[in-house]
Amino acid sequence: MSFQGNHDAETLRLRANAEALARLTNAEPVLVGVAPALEVVPGMSPELILTSGAPLAWPEYSGGQRRALIYGALYEGLARDPDEAADKLDRGVIRVATTQEHGCIGSVAGIYTASMPVLIVEDRVHGNRAFCNLYEGASRYRLNYGSFDQEVVDGLRWLEEVMAPVLSQSLSLQPVDLKPLMARALRMGDELHSRNTAGTMLLTRELTPSLLRLAGDPAWAGRVQSVLEFLMANDYTFLRVGMAAAKATADAAHGVPHSSVLTGMALNSREFAIRVSGLEAEWFRGPHPSLDGKFFDGFTPEDAEWIGGESCVTETVGLGAMTQACAPSLMEYQGGSFATMLRNNESMYAITLGEHPAYRIPALDFRGSPVGIDLHAVLSTGVTPLIDGGLAGKDGGQIGAGVLRPHLGAFQAAAAAYELRYPQASGA
Amino acid sequence: MSFQGNHDAETLRLRANAEALARLTNAEPVLVGVAPALEVVPGMSPELILTSGAPLAWPEYSGGQRRALIYGALYEGLARDPDEAADKLDRGVIRVATTQEHGCIGSVAGIYTASMPVLIVEDRVHGNRAFCNLYEGASRYRLNYGSFDQEVVDGLRWLEEVMAPVLSQSLSLQPVDLKPLMARALRMGDELHSRNTAGTMLLTRELTPSLLRLAGDPAWAGRVQSVLEFLMANDYTFLRVGMAAAKATADAAHGVPHSSVLTGMALNSREFAIRVSGLEAEWFRGPHPSLDGKFFDGFTPEDAEWIGGESCVTETVGLGAMTQACAPSLMEYQGGSFATMLRNNESMYAITLGEHPAYRIPALDFRGSPVGIDLHAVLSTGVTPLIDGGLAGKDGGQIGAGVLRPHLGAFQAAAAAYELRYPQASGA
Repeated sequence: MSFQGNHDAETLRLRANAEALARLTNAEPVLVGVAPALEVVPGMSPELILTSGAPLAWPEYSGGQRRALIYGALYEGLARDPDEAADKLDRGVIRVATTQEHGCIGSVAGIYTASMPVLIVEDRVHGNRAFCNLYEGASRYRLNYGSFDQEVVDGLRWLEEVMAPVLSQSLSLQPVDLKPLMARALRMGDELHSRNTAGTMLLTRELTPSLLRLAGDPAWAGRVQSVLEFLMANDYTFLRVGMAAAKATADAAHGVPHSSVLTGMALNSREFAIRVSGLEAEWFRGPHPSLDGKFFDGFTPEDAEWIGGESCVTETVGLGAMTQACAPSLMEYQGGSFATMLRNNESMYAITLGEHPAYRIPALDFRGSPVGIDLHAVLSTGVTPLIDGGLAGKDGGQIGAGVLRPHLGAFQAAAAAYELRYPQASGA
Repeated sequence: MSFQGNHDAETLRLRANAEALARLTNAEPVLVGVAPALEVVPGMSPELILTSGAPLAWPEYSGGQRRALIYGALYEGLARDPDEAADKLDRGVIRVATTQEHGCIGSVAGIYTASMPVLIVEDRVHGNRAFCNLYEGASRYRLNYGSFDQEVVDGLRWLEEVMAPVLSQSLSLQPVDLKPLMARALRMGDELHSRNTAGTMLLTRELTPSLLRLAGDPAWAGRVQSVLEFLMANDYTFLRVGMAAAKATADAAHGVPHSSVLTGMALNSREFAIRVSGLEAEWFRGPHPSLDGKFFDGFTPEDAEWIGGESCVTETVGLGAMTQACAPSLMEYQGGSFATMLRNNESMYAITLGEHPAYRIPALDFRGSPVGIDLHAVLSTGVTPLIDGGLAGKDGGQIGAGVLRPHLGAFQAAAAAYELRYPQASGA
């Protein structure tokens, strides 16, 4: 009887994980539009600012993530200066919530305010939507990296006034199927987390026919030219599209009872956290990852600071470090050798449930990417999911890039919760 | 004294090879225009047809290459039917010459007629120009693969009437620097012989701003749209640009007295041949290469036929099989495994004089590509230069792709000529 009980729990988990894996791999994310967050993000409101990571109370945000929230308030015109913003945040006049509570996904600090445009990605198979705001450009200083000055403001305004309307018009003429585009980018040297050069080019290519039609209208021609210049100068642009696609995909696999598959990984200024398909909305928290990085000239590991980050949603769906061997060029950006990248990539099969039928790795003879990170496999092997990522500096701005390796803490916390939620019969 | 003499010959050869290598790697090919062959190809004339490979007398061309020459005559309106074309070719009313005698470079049969548009690439460092005609599109049936029907004719006319004028206008607004573009394509999964997906996309990207300007003129808008559609549908388009760049580069390194560096490899229907920098215009001939290929469905090695080919000019300048490890995706097209591709690529360093400072291989930790194939190194190692390439069928059309491995014959013939031309003192 006890054996039977245990067997049932195991069977239920296997079935649930197969279902979660199928949802992860069957999702068909499509870029359908761009609109101000206030118009499309569920629950968005004018005095609300969204930020990356598992939820914290406002006073718990520290360092660059706290500053980024204040800067978001200034950008949105919710306060005249940092002191007033902090005061209004203290009093709850300006509110803070997490991106993922609102279907969004945050790059680094992940600051969303009501007027900011967001990319809208819809999973055509499961019907759900996810959102990501727009890449600010190649400058080291960006709001999402905790920087704020006139240039940052001008860049964000340009996204609102030029980029967003042009993309919105273009996508209304022709939405972009992201899964084939992303599969193709993997064959062109991207891993779609820290390298998005091919993704950006393929996206530009998909947009070009409708941009060309738009450019025929003198009212649009100048803005179209300006958007094309941005797309050609900013190889990272696609990251936000890929993140929205990954968020839509991960959400499709979330909420399968009994499943131990990860459907989220996220950083805030205090901790690393994971979300598990069968464990509802709870985030399980642990210490920040260890880091193997390459720093821009003049910076050292001592200059790095954790200010939040959810681009690791790409790893959650079988991209990023899960396809690191697709992107040997990445070693220039984040260090390492190709042998290390191959080894990193191959090590991930030990903790994943399947191989992605669409996301394939040419350098592994087109093996499907490792997908469906299983909580129990992480704990039984002691191997945690690797994450490619950009590194923020203590004084704001990006200061490098590297590979993050989470510790087991968050996974142990999740496993304990899983055990409580789905108790196995004893005596197994 | 005999030692001194030998030493001098060796010193002269080393110096000459260093010079040839420097020219190969310093060349800066720029795509400057597109024009009808008659207008820009030196020595082109209305009754002349150019074809790939070391020169043969007309009656010596056989099979698909002979047919392709006849088809060229029909396309150009030099004859009403194949019999009349053959008769005029027999009588020398229609003349045949080789592409490389006229600064051109031939893909497969490499048929050039007077009215066909050619890409014009100029090496800004050495001042020389090279030409390549335009990619006919993704159909298996193309004139350069020995096919000819109404669809082939319509495609060639479209190149003349739509593609060429649009490219010409666009390039007159903005020429395209090819070296940085090609270096970048190598980081995006191309090896720039059998895979040109990134190259085509990067070229399209470079052309887009001027195409956009052109599209503002209603007289051009339709043709611009049509060209963009072609560029987006035909990932191989860049090959011809890359071939012209490689031809300009190889020509820059040709004609250095005492140099034993290869400046050309070429196939015709009878033989494989090489050209050597210090041995003037002579081609040294040997048997056709052996072949390790992957055939399209329904075809076998018995269906393959040699009908000419000079795209191996890319290998001559450190691309193609010399950068095979850049393009793991190629295994889908030409077979093999990534381990084989790495091994193939690495084996080429044994027969080359240097590592290309601009063309780097991410999967070899950014090692420069093997460049400057040395005749003597080939003979002392017995290793011949590998060539990526498409395969033609006996009934015309492409039937597959693979890796060609030349035999030593042509190299032995060249070495004998080198020995005669630059005798070493005996007794060494």
